[in-house]
Amino acid sequence: MSELKLALAQINPSIGDIDGNAKKIIEQFEKAKKENCDLVIFGEMAICGYKTLDLLQKKYFISAIKEKILEIVAQTKGSKTAILLGCPTFEIGRNNSDILRNSAILIEDGTIKHIAHKKTLPNYGVFDEKRYFESANAISYVEFRGQTLAILICEDLWDKKNLFLLSEQIFDTIISINASPYSQNKPQQRFKTASNFAKTLKKPLFYVNLVGGQDELVFDGASMILDQNGELVAQAQEFQEDLITAQVTKTGHLTPKNSPLATYHLPLINNNYSACGLSLHDYVTKNGFNKVILGMSGGIDSALVAAIAVDALGSENVTLYALPSRFNSQTSMDDAVLCAKNLGVKLEVISIEEPFKAMLATIPNLSNLAQENLQSRIRGNILMAISNSSGALLLSTGNKSELATGYATLYGDMCGAFNPIKDLYKTEIYELAKYRNSISAAIPQNIIDKAPTAELRENQKDSDSLPEYEILDKILFSLIEKDNSVTEIINSGFEETMVKKVAQLFYQNEYKRQQSCLGPKISDRAFDLERRYPISNKFTK
Amino acid sequence: MSELKLALAQINPSIGDIDGNAKKIIEQFEKAKKENCDLVIFGEMAICGYKTLDLLQKKYFISAIKEKILEIVAQTKGSKTAILLGCPTFEIGRNNSDILRNSAILIEDGTIKHIAHKKTLPNYGVFDEKRYFESANAISYVEFRGQTLAILICEDLWDKKNLFLLSEQIFDTIISINASPYSQNKPQQRFKTASNFAKTLKKPLFYVNLVGGQDELVFDGASMILDQNGELVAQAQEFQEDLITAQVTKTGHLTPKNSPLATYHLPLINNNYSACGLSLHDYVTKNGFNKVILGMSGGIDSALVAAIAVDALGSENVTLYALPSRFNSQTSMDDAVLCAKNLGVKLEVISIEEPFKAMLATIPNLSNLAQENLQSRIRGNILMAISNSSGALLLSTGNKSELATGYATLYGDMCGAFNPIKDLYKTEIYELAKYRNSISAAIPQNIIDKAPTAELRENQKDSDSLPEYEILDKILFSLIEKDNSVTEIINSGFEETMVKKVAQLFYQNEYKRQQSCLGPKISDRAFDLERRYPISNKFTK
Repeated sequence: MSELKLALAQINPSIGDIDGNAKKIIEQFEKAKKENCDLVIFGEMAICGYKTLDLLQKKYFISAIKEKILEIVAQTKGSKTAILLGCPTFEIGRNNSDILRNSAILIEDGTIKHIAHKKTLPNYGVFDEKRYFESANAISYVEFRGQTLAILICEDLWDKKNLFLLSEQIFDTIISINASPYSQNKPQQRFKTASNFAKTLKKPLFYVNLVGGQDELVFDGASMILDQNGELVAQAQEFQEDLITAQVTKTGHLTPKNSPLATYHLPLINNNYSACGLSLHDYVTKNGFNKVILGMSGGIDSALVAAIAVDALGSENVTLYALPSRFNSQTSMDDAVLCAKNLGVKLEVISIEEPFKAMLATIPNLSNLAQENLQSRIRGNILMAISNSSGALLLSTGNKSELATGYATLYGDMCGAFNPIKDLYKTEIYELAKYRNSISAAIPQNIIDKAPTAELRENQKDSDSLPEYEILDKILFSLIEKDNSVTEIINSGFEETMVKKVAQLFYQNEYKRQQSCLGPKISDRAFDLERRYPISNKFTK
Repeated sequence: MSELKLALAQINPSIGDIDGNAKKIIEQFEKAKKENCDLVIFGEMAICGYKTLDLLQKKYFISAIKEKILEIVAQTKGSKTAILLGCPTFEIGRNNSDILRNSAILIEDGTIKHIAHKKTLPNYGVFDEKRYFESANAISYVEFRGQTLAILICEDLWDKKNLFLLSEQIFDTIISINASPYSQNKPQQRFKTASNFAKTLKKPLFYVNLVGGQDELVFDGASMILDQNGELVAQAQEFQEDLITAQVTKTGHLTPKNSPLATYHLPLINNNYSACGLSLHDYVTKNGFNKVILGMSGGIDSALVAAIAVDALGSENVTLYALPSRFNSQTSMDDAVLCAKNLGVKLEVISIEEPFKAMLATIPNLSNLAQENLQSRIRGNILMAISNSSGALLLSTGNKSELATGYATLYGDMCGAFNPIKDLYKTEIYELAKYRNSISAAIPQNIIDKAPTAELRENQKDSDSLPEYEILDKILFSLIEKDNSVTEIINSGFEETMVKKVAQLFYQNEYKRQQSCLGPKISDRAFDLERRYPISNKFTK
């Protein structure tokens, strides 16, 4: 009876860091060797990270990957443990055309034994694989030490045609290598899809994912091993690197069979918090920074970002700045001070009053709106000056509701390298703040309880110019995530004038969103990367 | 002998403005009727504009288009003139899946006679059609008043496989409907491709393009009629709406046969200037604005943008602002004043000295770099405040060389809604300025002659921190347009330290480019839309 010991190596590669990623691959290979594994399996594009975008169009990038893979191949000489590795592969097609494929290569005892190519290329949502890759005509099968392995690459698992094709083939075990980005509903969808695949085909399924943040994408890991009934028997950590193993016989018997805690049943909120933190951490560190700063208004958004930053980077790497104007209340300052104290982090206070006065004297007759924006932009200038001087990255703190309605100020509070809460609606910000406080005291209760205000004029409240967030967020969710029309939203029970106003604000602020900084995709329809819209657009119905 | 009179209607549609576009279509239809045409042919997606991006994923958008088309259909009842119109079409496929196609519909005497679908969907460069459309299996042919027309939609003409397929079919005349965006080499490439198609198949070819600016894309028009030898017999205007007609027999005889001036042989520079102007004009007006402002440094970039803006929008719609600091020379001010005078446009002077002092007093111990950026950002704040107060759009004036090296200041001179020179290298800016001056005195000679400087510290010159632009631009062109590696560039004869420094600056400033405003694509590799790169990226070789 052929029994294989398989390892799933869930690594956090950096885009373009071929040497560093190869080092991680060899480390996991050594670990798998020690555990006497037959095969250690890595995620999609593990050698170069996902998504590399137009880097893939540089031939010398592909050549550099190939060279590094040959070094990895050499290191497997004489070893019992083989490697299955996600990477791009290149060949010259008819008429000398270049053919790039999204592949998995099987490396054994110093040679490349097999190359499997991805059949179904996703080209929707955040994915643009048809820009780069040619698809394979068929799913690849490989004989390995007495078993036939079916090798699926990411989207191959989600394409029902492939399920049908596999049901007509004879094989033993399904291997699925992935770079499957997080969204709050993804862990459940992913488990359901994989489970259905295993159950329908009556075969065990080894699913390996990447982990880590890459610009807007967060790979949450949670690699898993499913038995032929589609039941979970092992799961890797979420949001961190891990290696899990299991033995599988030709008849699909798995050992050990753990029935682990199905972490995909965790509340979304926990995962969202982890996703924001990992994304921020990896953006900062993968770009060669370690310190961040942010403006602390005393409101919920900046308080939550401060908590996420401290949890992700350590309190020693975070500095908060309160930048009061004549319109900021003492309550806001007290709340900011208490929040900083809770988080054990430094808060500096810089009044914007003098620059604001100087600006008002320099440009007379500004409209009220211009004066409000000016305060936000002076704060942006101060924070950018400190960032430029100190080498700390500035974090932006606008939430999805603000970005949707244009309530955030371009070149003001929208300044920053990264925005950990960009894809969270205001109502989700409150939920996340409460979740964070359930772990330890972080965000003062008064910040959660008080009415939201930008404090850019006397006694201002967000609800002066926007609907209450409970209603606003529902309208926005319907417009954005559900792609509903204004008429459909009105017909679903919202007040006509309000819906029209929100839709108008939403469409006319597309130009601001397109100049916003990056933030992690959490929803099913993140701005910019996933929701791509013209700025000049007259269809706003 | 069947002779058809065909009209090519080159219109400037607005994205999503279905009513307005339909009005233009009917106007051209009426014109073609008066000229007794058999068929009036419109560009790709003429009903909704190109590119509509994720608007296409809204079912009610497609429904609204369908409704409007039925109105157009009704208007052709009883008329001799038929319409061929580019539009999206929708059907329900197997398993209730939605199938969207990029189509051309033939409308005749109150009915839809035929629907042709696009076969070759471009998914490279600026194009993402596989995100939205299903491709047709074959090129469509239609019988029309005794002739067989082959109907190609844009990319269908560029796919050599289609040329082979057509060579095996029997038909009379080629119709090619397009939304072919401008780049400086495109007019020539387009003529060559169409000419080769006509000549190889020995058939006349009617090529209609859109015209107008749509965010980063500029459609240059230049619709054309080619005879069966691939010779040009008629060409529509470039960069403006037009309608041209010709009669064609079943044997391919064309009348009138004009041998017009081949405008695609015009110097690139003329077209580039027109493209920048049209793009700016349409961005401003299609978004409901008419006035613009810009900061006038006395340097070449802002002077050129001022000239483009005045030519595109009229001097009454442009206001220039000189915003001197302690570091700005009197020469700069004199140059700015003379340039404004030449252009017949208002120049306001606002000193940034007081806000700069107030900021320096508010945030002590700023690094030199932070102080330089601060000046640029104070200017950005002032201009945005004026924009917010006045309702005039702010134009940004950073060139491609600056954006490539990060020499532009984020939230400073990068502030703005639109940047007409975003895709022009510094050396191209000089060429364009000289071209503009060849028409009439606009940009003072001293601005062209003096050494470029940002004037953010005493006696600063761009060449203090960057190579001379003649060399810099060659290195950048090699990196960006040619996608060459650092090693390849060094081997082609540039100094190693310099190339490495430029490449490092280039890659590490990706984050700035991704927060930059829109500007027209002029080159073969425009940032953001056409060159898509990760920010977190360690491959910079």
